[in-house]
Amino acid sequence: MTNNNENKNPAAAARGSELASDFTVSINYDSRLYREDIAGSIVHARMLGRQGIIESDDVEKIVEGLGVIIEEIENGEFEWKEELEDIHMNVESRLYELIGDAAGRLHTARSRNDQVATDTRLWTQLACGRAFDAAVQLQKSLVDLAEQHIDTVVPGYTHMQRGQPVVLAHHLMAYFEMFDRDATRFAQTAESADVMPLGSGAMAGVPYDIDREWVAKELDFSDISRNSMDAVSDRDFIVEFLTASSLAMAHLSRLAEELVIWSSDEFGFIKLSDEFTSGSSIMPQKRNPDFAELIRGKTGRVYGSLMGLLTTIKGLPLTYNRDLQEDKEGLFDAADTVITALEAAAGMIAGMTVNVDRMRQAAANSFVLATDIADYLVGKGVPFRAAYIAVSDLSKQCIADGVGFGELSLSDFQKASDLFDDGVMEITLDSAVAARNVPGGTAPERVRAAIEEAKGLLADAGA
Amino acid sequence: MTNNNENKNPAAAARGSELASDFTVSINYDSRLYREDIAGSIVHARMLGRQGIIESDDVEKIVEGLGVIIEEIENGEFEWKEELEDIHMNVESRLYELIGDAAGRLHTARSRNDQVATDTRLWTQLACGRAFDAAVQLQKSLVDLAEQHIDTVVPGYTHMQRGQPVVLAHHLMAYFEMFDRDATRFAQTAESADVMPLGSGAMAGVPYDIDREWVAKELDFSDISRNSMDAVSDRDFIVEFLTASSLAMAHLSRLAEELVIWSSDEFGFIKLSDEFTSGSSIMPQKRNPDFAELIRGKTGRVYGSLMGLLTTIKGLPLTYNRDLQEDKEGLFDAADTVITALEAAAGMIAGMTVNVDRMRQAAANSFVLATDIADYLVGKGVPFRAAYIAVSDLSKQCIADGVGFGELSLSDFQKASDLFDDGVMEITLDSAVAARNVPGGTAPERVRAAIEEAKGLLADAGA
Amino acid sequence: MTNNNENKNPAAAARGSELASDFTVSINYDSRLYREDIAGSIVHARMLGRQGIIESDDVEKIVEGLGVIIEEIENGEFEWKEELEDIHMNVESRLYELIGDAAGRLHTARSRNDQVATDTRLWTQLACGRAFDAAVQLQKSLVDLAEQHIDTVVPGYTHMQRGQPVVLAHHLMAYFEMFDRDATRFAQTAESADVMPLGSGAMAGVPYDIDREWVAKELDFSDISRNSMDAVSDRDFIVEFLTASSLAMAHLSRLAEELVIWSSDEFGFIKLSDEFTSGSSIMPQKRNPDFAELIRGKTGRVYGSLMGLLTTIKGLPLTYNRDLQEDKEGLFDAADTVITALEAAAGMIAGMTVNVDRMRQAAANSFVLATDIADYLVGKGVPFRAAYIAVSDLSKQCIADGVGFGELSLSDFQKASDLFDDGVMEITLDSAVAARNVPGGTAPERVRAAIEEAKGLLADAGA
Amino acid sequence: MTNNNENKNPAAAARGSELASDFTVSINYDSRLYREDIAGSIVHARMLGRQGIIESDDVEKIVEGLGVIIEEIENGEFEWKEELEDIHMNVESRLYELIGDAAGRLHTARSRNDQVATDTRLWTQLACGRAFDAAVQLQKSLVDLAEQHIDTVVPGYTHMQRGQPVVLAHHLMAYFEMFDRDATRFAQTAESADVMPLGSGAMAGVPYDIDREWVAKELDFSDISRNSMDAVSDRDFIVEFLTASSLAMAHLSRLAEELVIWSSDEFGFIKLSDEFTSGSSIMPQKRNPDFAELIRGKTGRVYGSLMGLLTTIKGLPLTYNRDLQEDKEGLFDAADTVITALEAAAGMIAGMTVNVDRMRQAAANSFVLATDIADYLVGKGVPFRAAYIAVSDLSKQCIADGVGFGELSLSDFQKASDLFDDGVMEITLDSAVAARNVPGGTAPERVRAAIEEAKGLLADAGA
Repeated sequence: MTNNNENKNPAAAARGSELASDFTVSINYDSRLYREDIAGSIVHARMLGRQGIIESDDVEKIVEGLGVIIEEIENGEFEWKEELEDIHMNVESRLYELIGDAAGRLHTARSRNDQVATDTRLWTQLACGRAFDAAVQLQKSLVDLAEQHIDTVVPGYTHMQRGQPVVLAHHLMAYFEMFDRDATRFAQTAESADVMPLGSGAMAGVPYDIDREWVAKELDFSDISRNSMDAVSDRDFIVEFLTASSLAMAHLSRLAEELVIWSSDEFGFIKLSDEFTSGSSIMPQKRNPDFAELIRGKTGRVYGSLMGLLTTIKGLPLTYNRDLQEDKEGLFDAADTVITALEAAAGMIAGMTVNVDRMRQAAANSFVLATDIADYLVGKGVPFRAAYIAVSDLSKQCIADGVGFGELSLSDFQKASDLFDDGVMEITLDSAVAARNVPGGTAPERVRAAIEEAKGLLADAGA
Repeated sequence: MTNNNENKNPAAAARGSELASDFTVSINYDSRLYREDIAGSIVHARMLGRQGIIESDDVEKIVEGLGVIIEEIENGEFEWKEELEDIHMNVESRLYELIGDAAGRLHTARSRNDQVATDTRLWTQLACGRAFDAAVQLQKSLVDLAEQHIDTVVPGYTHMQRGQPVVLAHHLMAYFEMFDRDATRFAQTAESADVMPLGSGAMAGVPYDIDREWVAKELDFSDISRNSMDAVSDRDFIVEFLTASSLAMAHLSRLAEELVIWSSDEFGFIKLSDEFTSGSSIMPQKRNPDFAELIRGKTGRVYGSLMGLLTTIKGLPLTYNRDLQEDKEGLFDAADTVITALEAAAGMIAGMTVNVDRMRQAAANSFVLATDIADYLVGKGVPFRAAYIAVSDLSKQCIADGVGFGELSLSDFQKASDLFDDGVMEITLDSAVAARNVPGGTAPERVRAAIEEAKGLLADAGA
Repeated sequence: MTNNNENKNPAAAARGSELASDFTVSINYDSRLYREDIAGSIVHARMLGRQGIIESDDVEKIVEGLGVIIEEIENGEFEWKEELEDIHMNVESRLYELIGDAAGRLHTARSRNDQVATDTRLWTQLACGRAFDAAVQLQKSLVDLAEQHIDTVVPGYTHMQRGQPVVLAHHLMAYFEMFDRDATRFAQTAESADVMPLGSGAMAGVPYDIDREWVAKELDFSDISRNSMDAVSDRDFIVEFLTASSLAMAHLSRLAEELVIWSSDEFGFIKLSDEFTSGSSIMPQKRNPDFAELIRGKTGRVYGSLMGLLTTIKGLPLTYNRDLQEDKEGLFDAADTVITALEAAAGMIAGMTVNVDRMRQAAANSFVLATDIADYLVGKGVPFRAAYIAVSDLSKQCIADGVGFGELSLSDFQKASDLFDDGVMEITLDSAVAARNVPGGTAPERVRAAIEEAKGLLADAGA
Repeated sequence: MTNNNENKNPAAAARGSELASDFTVSINYDSRLYREDIAGSIVHARMLGRQGIIESDDVEKIVEGLGVIIEEIENGEFEWKEELEDIHMNVESRLYELIGDAAGRLHTARSRNDQVATDTRLWTQLACGRAFDAAVQLQKSLVDLAEQHIDTVVPGYTHMQRGQPVVLAHHLMAYFEMFDRDATRFAQTAESADVMPLGSGAMAGVPYDIDREWVAKELDFSDISRNSMDAVSDRDFIVEFLTASSLAMAHLSRLAEELVIWSSDEFGFIKLSDEFTSGSSIMPQKRNPDFAELIRGKTGRVYGSLMGLLTTIKGLPLTYNRDLQEDKEGLFDAADTVITALEAAAGMIAGMTVNVDRMRQAAANSFVLATDIADYLVGKGVPFRAAYIAVSDLSKQCIADGVGFGELSLSDFQKASDLFDDGVMEITLDSAVAARNVPGGTAPERVRAAIEEAKGLLADAGA
């Protein structure tokens, strides 16, 4: 065995202890888990007492001591110590100070590996609940605004080109659907997190007659983990949370993009309220949609946290490896980001002003009725493709002539196809919208029904 | 309006049509959707007939023509044309050749936007089913092997250091749990995909009296989409598929990593079968675990497809944008990869040879009983932390002396703590494993029960 | 040793050979390396001859045989065999057929590990060159268009809000800068790839008196690798290529976003040429900017390939592991994508029509002169912050009154600050643009100089 | 214009100001830029004075006031105010308190857009320097350790299978090469950041006769930006930093993986020093390589930051958008992570103990000489492929017989090929290593030369 005592880089060799604070210490972020950690310890101690594994005297001391600690933390009196590295050791160490040797019995039949997994699952369930609620609030804002705009006509866009007229409510309700799926995913993720790993010990289970079901019940878990080796190394529920958050951010980024574009001078469809815009340090007239931009920009950090955790868990052998300590910061940051972004979006929707006239005018000054005119020919027996070509030619002619469909006479139409008759003159933005009277379509009566259904869903979700 | 007729880079300007084949053409990959595309068209045509939107004669021609096309494709006689860009136009164009004008009526009340969304949802549901089945097959291989190794003791590792003894079956069943969650996620994703967008038209719904529910029923969809603008631009279900696949690959990469390490000369725990190893072009003795390495390596491409689609959908305004064409290649590649990787893993597990002796020896030549010895002191009333320190000191002494716990006499133990008595001499690998007799623990009787439960789950899953 | 002959999942065990074609076979994509592979083999054979390691007769046969093979491949006569897995074995096997035993001597002092690294480095250098050229062509298109629009005033945007007037040439030249950095990165990546690994053998070097420098010179490498273990496992140059490509796609996505927005009806700043737009299957009037959208959307796949390879190489022990086979598809796809996207962007820029009037009008109907008016006050001695506030208030008043700055009289200005005098009436779009006469600023004379400098750079780059 | 005064979600509408602190406020992290921000302001003020844009009295006050502020910050007396949002406004506001109206003149001819870009570029250059130095320190640790192990034989691995013998120094020097490329990339990134954007104003340049070159010189920038619109929105240099960091982390993750595997009981090749390992909360004998695991795990967060920023910049129109505020946290975190990880790795290498005997024994108990034995036959005129097959068969026979090559007699060899003669008996680990005497090969004399060259490079790098 060579002892490298000739090593020429002693400075490097001696850096270990200094580096620890950057590297192994997690107390600066895992202190967020204090409620979950202490709640878990209290129930664990009680179970040890019930099972006769530790004395009831000790249980009482432990529970009381932990109660003191939680108060100290919430009063800001707790002294967090970096040298104790993490939340578990900070709490355990303070417990020793408060109650002495009995504190040592708390760690019976438990390991930091199953303890931290339990804490994180409890925290994730709460975060899912908050994200769910924030998504529902945003849905509510959308429905409220939609309800006022069932008859507001706006161009529906594909490829950022005006396509067919829709009502604004229908456009807004498209986002209702997206956030509905997001809320569902947060609820599913809460279920994935709702499995209690405590009792898995370091990874093999524990050699004590513990009662895992009782602990799970007390901590409001629906289920206990089935395999101890998996339980201490499973972080799937965090990946699921990050995915649900990433998709929610993707949807928010779409909404934000539209709010930015719609509040440009060129579109001028909406005006965001003052709380959600800001000025320029140099251009006094600016009214920048900063919140919308930040929502869109913060999509990156949530995607990044997802990619980060997927990278971290790739290729890790069983069971617990210290790499897994890296699971928490991305989780916390994504939860903060997505919840705040959902709230900000709800606020922007609730506070914005809609320029109804400008929207309708944009639809009017366009060829969004082309499909309906083609469909009119189809109704006269023309195969769709042939009708399509006739109207396409007609719209090109109009563009060349600098006129809109609204300015054409019947004889103009008849030059394109002699199957046109008076009925074509009755195709309007409102008739076109009303004609899309299919489930999921933009006809106002369908949209009104969709809004009613949505209100029912929101009521069920407690909004 | 300036016409840039002085433009100095005419070569660049003229490249458009050539570039199309690289850029806008998708037929080289979306031809994989031919079954779904044609199935959707047949049902759509029938519905148009039932609703009196097109003549029943035309319906018959369309259905017959599409039947011919599907045969041509499956016989390899269909001539795919790149200039027709995508699967939809290839089929539609051939239909014209076969049945003439009636073909033009098929596109009534439908757009490529809702059509491709429908095709992709049908395909994704099938892919979910195949991935589910492949995960279940792998679970079956794991259970089969586990059943033979309920009494095979192996070190359980944390931090790649031997920690506590476990039985191999328990280690294998940890993977059973991971793939069980994966199977669940594929099933959930199938549900997310199980919503029919047809009838959404380009994005606003269609101005025909169509029957969406009937179409959904015929195509085996459980539900129809509730908002046409959302329906044509929603790709959440693909992101969900890519996430489910990414997590499955993460789990497979962990298993693969262990297979690689376990088949190293240093570990020597297993021998992979010949089908799953290969030789070296230069080192004749090599037996490389190529399949395991490729599974691990291919984790990257699936993560990449997930990140790719998330990037693509970020910040897209409503509704359909051509960016969304980029959804398919990643989906197809991820499905192929994860299904094949699950199958390959099942094959490796089924075909590998376990070196039972070497595993037990690795556990024996170690300090994996340290926790049990500490727990023994706890049983004598020593607080856990104090017991921990005593045994830690003892193991350091042993390492210094070059002996294992198995070589210590009672008096050696008693030097560490006078609370040790005869009972400590009875702590063995088998007693330690048996002691972890908690739900989810490694005690053979618990593992046997877990395997029985698993077999029930597999039977339910149709394996 | 347990032989798992009781295994219950024989189907799974037997899948190995079938799976190979999906998993270990790479010939379907690595055949793209045939030129590099054969070029390397020819030089290697010659070197072996020069060093007396193999007979010159054998060298001649090998070189001649390889010449035949390259012809067969390029004539489409070569029969690729999947069972031979990769490009190396396909070529080697055919060589045996053509020249018999001498073929076996080609593999002397070489391994597939150093061979494939060499092939990939040669290919990457070529791809860098092509990407560099495509970036330069796009720069040329930008400069050509900029040259025509040195006096075209357009609003400069921050936060998608009109900020200050700029000339269109200045806006276009911002992209020139981005693609200039991209071209530089492709050139740097070519340098990173320009290190020859051949002679590293499987990983330890080879026990023959080879001449690596001669081989490097013949293959046009500037350098040889310094450590054989690193040489066979280093894929940094591919990560660099994927990063250079990702940044180029990021820039292209920004340009594409602007082309999409600028060709919306609401902006109406440009019209893309027909080659780069397409129609709708259902809306006959549509003119969709599909190429721009696809460029923007394809950003995702390139980011995904980058993330994929980074994931693949994470945590790999030395030296070659089969995981590394996953390096090529992402590389090929990214190269194809970024080169085609650069070409498509060049084509769009070269072919588009600019609506000069609409751009100026957008600037005129706005408050883009606010900063200049504030700066005017600063010139009169007002601290910047105070001037800023005065003009901000003035612009708010104008918005409330529905007038623009252009409609204000001197006395209106003087209500905001009595320091305003006649000079303020002379602030116009053109004077404002001309005033930003600093290096890098939008004053036409600065932009003209920037264009001249750019033309010099392009000339140096061979455009 | 509809005023949404009926809005039903007033709570959501009112959340704006509260959300600001989570969303728009950046002072909690961008305060890290205080030195760069103030240095830039001092030089900017001096330039304004030199150019006669502001009075020299005001310059003096500004410079003095900023000097006070920097002292206050470094003494911990500065009161950071969240309501002032960012570093720029915190400094500017305090400057007003200290010097009154003159403070308002500092913002003349400058915008936050060019100011923050300048700050970030200065900071990135420093971070590149620190990362470069940390990489060089790690290289130094590697070279120091390598120098002691030029004759330490260890198996060289491919596919985690023993392949050919190498010397440990050669293996270590493979990492020297990786970190050499990393150091180069950090140096290149510093060059990319070394371009001064100040003078670009909000995005169009400024209407003052400023002297950008003088400012650049004073701030130690080599160059000034060439286009103001690009300058305020370019974040390429941060993406480059994140890529350089990602590759460095990838290399560190490979090294960490090997340190973890090598310190397993099964390999037993090395022992990490106490500073870099830690115990278990439950298993007293454990010696966990936590630092190595954390390095490996933290690879994820750096990859995530790269992906995050790439996502953020995707599809952003010109010029500055608030999304770009998201550039800094990932940059800061990646810099902290990669620098600390490089330092930790240097410490681990410097402090670890190598088990020379165990390494040699692993090489001896194996078939790592197979290639050399095959090459021996090649030397006798056998084509490589034939030699390969003969030795492969021989090794399989040995494995079946449970013997190593070292235990074979000449006649055993001759059963495999009658071309074997006495010389084959002289092939040893040391002869095999020595035989790979090519540039970059593992022959000790080559490795010694490589180490000498490396020491020269390190001396040039100032280590």
